[in-house]
Amino acid sequence: MVDHKIGIDGISKLRPARRGLLRAGLSSAFALGAARTALADGGMPETDWDKGVGGAVADTTYGQPVAAQSDMKRRMVAWLTRDQTSSISFTPLQYQTGIITPSGVFFERYHAGRVDVDADKHRLMIHGMVDRPMIFTMDDIKRLPAESHIHFIECPANGGMEWRGAQLNSLQYTHGMIGCAEWTGVKLSVLLGMTGLQKSAKWILVEGADGSHLTRSIPIEKALDDILLVYGQNGELLRPEQGYPLRLVVPGWQGNVNVKWIRRIKVGDQPWFTHEETSKYTELRGDGHAYGFTWPIFSKSVITFPCPEMPIKSGGGVYEIRGLAWSGNGKIKQVDVSFDGGVNYVRAKLQEPVLTKALTRFTCEWRWDGKPALIQSRAMDETGYVQPTQAELRAIRGSNGVYNNNAIQTWEVKADGSVNNVQLA
Amino acid sequence: MVDHKIGIDGISKLRPARRGLLRAGLSSAFALGAARTALADGGMPETDWDKGVGGAVADTTYGQPVAAQSDMKRRMVAWLTRDQTSSISFTPLQYQTGIITPSGVFFERYHAGRVDVDADKHRLMIHGMVDRPMIFTMDDIKRLPAESHIHFIECPANGGMEWRGAQLNSLQYTHGMIGCAEWTGVKLSVLLGMTGLQKSAKWILVEGADGSHLTRSIPIEKALDDILLVYGQNGELLRPEQGYPLRLVVPGWQGNVNVKWIRRIKVGDQPWFTHEETSKYTELRGDGHAYGFTWPIFSKSVITFPCPEMPIKSGGGVYEIRGLAWSGNGKIKQVDVSFDGGVNYVRAKLQEPVLTKALTRFTCEWRWDGKPALIQSRAMDETGYVQPTQAELRAIRGSNGVYNNNAIQTWEVKADGSVNNVQLA
Repeated sequence: MVDHKIGIDGISKLRPARRGLLRAGLSSAFALGAARTALADGGMPETDWDKGVGGAVADTTYGQPVAAQSDMKRRMVAWLTRDQTSSISFTPLQYQTGIITPSGVFFERYHAGRVDVDADKHRLMIHGMVDRPMIFTMDDIKRLPAESHIHFIECPANGGMEWRGAQLNSLQYTHGMIGCAEWTGVKLSVLLGMTGLQKSAKWILVEGADGSHLTRSIPIEKALDDILLVYGQNGELLRPEQGYPLRLVVPGWQGNVNVKWIRRIKVGDQPWFTHEETSKYTELRGDGHAYGFTWPIFSKSVITFPCPEMPIKSGGGVYEIRGLAWSGNGKIKQVDVSFDGGVNYVRAKLQEPVLTKALTRFTCEWRWDGKPALIQSRAMDETGYVQPTQAELRAIRGSNGVYNNNAIQTWEVKADGSVNNVQLA
Repeated sequence: MVDHKIGIDGISKLRPARRGLLRAGLSSAFALGAARTALADGGMPETDWDKGVGGAVADTTYGQPVAAQSDMKRRMVAWLTRDQTSSISFTPLQYQTGIITPSGVFFERYHAGRVDVDADKHRLMIHGMVDRPMIFTMDDIKRLPAESHIHFIECPANGGMEWRGAQLNSLQYTHGMIGCAEWTGVKLSVLLGMTGLQKSAKWILVEGADGSHLTRSIPIEKALDDILLVYGQNGELLRPEQGYPLRLVVPGWQGNVNVKWIRRIKVGDQPWFTHEETSKYTELRGDGHAYGFTWPIFSKSVITFPCPEMPIKSGGGVYEIRGLAWSGNGKIKQVDVSFDGGVNYVRAKLQEPVLTKALTRFTCEWRWDGKPALIQSRAMDETGYVQPTQAELRAIRGSNGVYNNNAIQTWEVKADGSVNNVQLA
């Protein structure tokens, strides 16, 4: 064994120094202007936390966010739904620092409230056009081959309020019905391999165990592709808000198909056209006709800094525009940013890892002259599909839509650095 | 715009069906044996959560784990340190479902307790052999180009108790001084580009703002490579336990170098040999001599199922062995699993994404005959370095070690499915 490698030899593995590059002024663009502070004697403020001893390690307590971030929480719009059980809370996307949405602020959407399911009593039944109908316990499911994948889940009503023009002045409310997490579970295809499929099998019906008995029809091709039966989120068990003990994760497809507290999968030869896929989640067009099933989330993006909740505080200068892009049809390939309401675009930089059907961070340098500006981001995924403008979408869909608003978002940055949600004519 | 793609056309993007493969019996190995339950009339248990309406959406509350997982918490070993401030709590790695460690259970290690720092008053000073000494506020740092990376942080004392033979019968205690998170911050190289480096600059000294004033020397090559000044963890601000508002993340290097509450970076031409890098974190060899600086974490792995806390409950049959592997020198390239104490090995499957200096999940099918077995995992990283056996390590280091125990872990699976921490002669 090469134990001798451990120790000071380790440094030989480091990359060659790049000091030349740095000395040439790598970061001159971000010289911070007025914020830059020359070192002076006594330049470091007096503090009290560096004297003495702090708190003990947490033994039995589950850690909580820093108190200073008490503003990072889910929020709801009281008038959006008739009551707070069949309702929605929004992810504070404006404060999210990476691609992982903390489970504590992951958006909620209930059709009949959040239920507390006893995992020991919970079962998943698979029946219908299968060779061997089966019922699985949670222990059964956890014993099967496990996979973990990072995917977003977005409610197709995300941005729905915006069809009628710019509404709430808040990134949390325009785009917060989305979250991205590491999901752990077993591929549905593994379970269908156990039950077998009859030749006539073309669709599955998935049903939740809550009072709404939410049911959706899904083509068998998707069921055999990447759908997961999930029991873990961000390293721990699912939480009740996300369907503990078991939910469906249908990568890239709109949130309501990702049925929570899933208890039943029926295999059939045609879609069921259930209440939840006829009364809702169909797509009304401008001409009065409706699309039927609209499953994948199409390329979408939004600038998270600056945004209404994250204004610019220091006046004109060099800033890093930051945002999130996603597509339900694969990986994000390119994001462009405009500072003039879509007349000109510059290419943004994508932050690795760029994962399929996951949030992707992008950044772009902006030399802001301190004058009012209209900033936008436009995402393209690996299929070549480009996020449309609000006007392009509305030309087809009209303004009575609820779902699948993936239009380019425009933020108006005012001279004082404040940011407004606006729509261009 | 290609808005017409939205809708029923979406299905054309799905992959071809793989039903043939499934019908051939893809998962026959995991047919669950006795746990398999044929569907019968009345086979689904009666429940009460599917009748009526559940709880409302959380408005202002930060979400908490499901009550059923109250066992997933950090734990400490009371006798390990003299008090609980300069101490350690361990990550419950046995319950972690993916590669992301929830922030609420990420292990802690304090040298003088957990301090509550006021971000508005916190400063980072960079001085010494630089052209322009500077002091940065948190606003300054957050304005600089942001990056997010998934990396593990491991205390080099992880497994330290095991040098003297198998001790506590617990994965949490043998391997729990590690966590893996998505860290967001700015490259240290960006700040050093702003201060400039004098030609003599070869080392940096990094110092924490807590009462211990923890200081470590780091070669300038690493400082200019991948070190991050981090303010975000798993999508939100750092928590006090992890160094709010600012910590160093030194990808792949032992935990104590990843200084929390960082307030000062001094650039110099030689290491400082501070208290914390001479009294601790040096590596005693069997011959009485010591290595000096031992920075990177070398290839390491452990089986997380089965393990002492996660025994086998259903007797002989087919199981999926699951585990975690990591290396501070790059990506994990290969993991092998043995069921006979290291005589024979089979290749494990790695779960994507395999990221550099991050936890990587591996799985491996095991047809257990129900007889006692000695199971092990052995990781190799992209440098070709292979995780050593306990005996190989001890031949060089003796048994008085504290740090850098990356030996292959042996779990003894007994006939009743219980699991013991053992060491082979």
